[in-house]
Amino acid sequence: MNPSNHETCDAALAELPGWHVIDGRNAIGKVFRFADFSAAFAFMARVALLAEKMDHHPEWTNVYNRVDVVLTTHAAGGVTEKDLTMAHAMERYVG
Amino acid sequence: MNPSNHETCDAALAELPGWHVIDGRNAIGKVFRFADFSAAFAFMARVALLAEKMDHHPEWTNVYNRVDVVLTTHAAGGVTEKDLTMAHAMERYVG
Amino acid sequence: MNPSNHETCDAALAELPGWHVIDGRNAIGKVFRFADFSAAFAFMARVALLAEKMDHHPEWTNVYNRVDVVLTTHAAGGVTEKDLTMAHAMERYVG
Amino acid sequence: MNPSNHETCDAALAELPGWHVIDGRNAIGKVFRFADFSAAFAFMARVALLAEKMDHHPEWTNVYNRVDVVLTTHAAGGVTEKDLTMAHAMERYVG
Repeated sequence: MNPSNHETCDAALAELPGWHVIDGRNAIGKVFRFADFSAAFAFMARVALLAEKMDHHPEWTNVYNRVDVVLTTHAAGGVTEKDLTMAHAMERYVG
Repeated sequence: MNPSNHETCDAALAELPGWHVIDGRNAIGKVFRFADFSAAFAFMARVALLAEKMDHHPEWTNVYNRVDVVLTTHAAGGVTEKDLTMAHAMERYVG
Repeated sequence: MNPSNHETCDAALAELPGWHVIDGRNAIGKVFRFADFSAAFAFMARVALLAEKMDHHPEWTNVYNRVDVVLTTHAAGGVTEKDLTMAHAMERYVG
Repeated sequence: MNPSNHETCDAALAELPGWHVIDGRNAIGKVFRFADFSAAFAFMARVALLAEKMDHHPEWTNVYNRVDVVLTTHAAGGVTEKDLTMAHAMERYVG
């Protein structure tokens, strides 16, 4: 996020357990861990549907039961409402 | 299932809430309902992974948040342990 | 589709090989066959993404390598541009 | 791969266009690019099915239409037949 909206972002992240600002990037991220690959991929399928619907796609890495998600809005050069909406949706999916 | 294993099947179904023998077929089925299409498809993704792993595939119909599943083992002409294993896995996925 | 737009629909279907009006329903459909379950499910994943994006979902049945698709627009009581858009997208996915 | 099987691996990679040994790791990798996210995710769905079937899972990162795949067999500490089988399957999926 831009220096000017750091405060807003901190407030937003406070409601998103496990999410943090990625070092050296205007982006937020979280590492999700699941019971196994099957559960991880089902989560990814659900996020994929949302991403396509929002036309807003995560950067993500999967290794077996682990999914590392990074969210940023390239067009805005930082974290926007879109990223926060997606992060909250991911929390609902694993909730 | 064959007439000879009706009793076994009834006992097995007793542990699978919502599952029933499909009228006129040696097959079992259940209608699953989800919050929305996204949740339904995430379930399908997970079942698809299991199906491919087991080399045992469901007959299933999806309309928005609803997934109708029918399980039978064609090679055996009826319901087998494979179908029960899959039904139990589906229950875990929605549990 | 409504009686009044049968002609339009016939013209639209002429460009969609394998698609036909479903008997007794204001809906169009096609049976897709793939090499195996894996190819069928990859197709379904792609259609699912589009469906969620369009907020327009198919009725579909999958048995191993076969996917039976039925498209209609419930709110309109018949086939609309949304269905034709989706049918054309499916053709691109298998093309 | 182990130093002892470098030659075998080079021969194997020669048949896999775009695949290379990952710097500093006993692993092979490739960057796949697709028309869009939808095509990328359909590929991932198909690979996920295979991975679960083989009980052999890729390390992979997706950003929109790009999928970076890394394959190694942790239990063996290097590249094995499983990785080559999976790499060849991926080539068939995009072929």
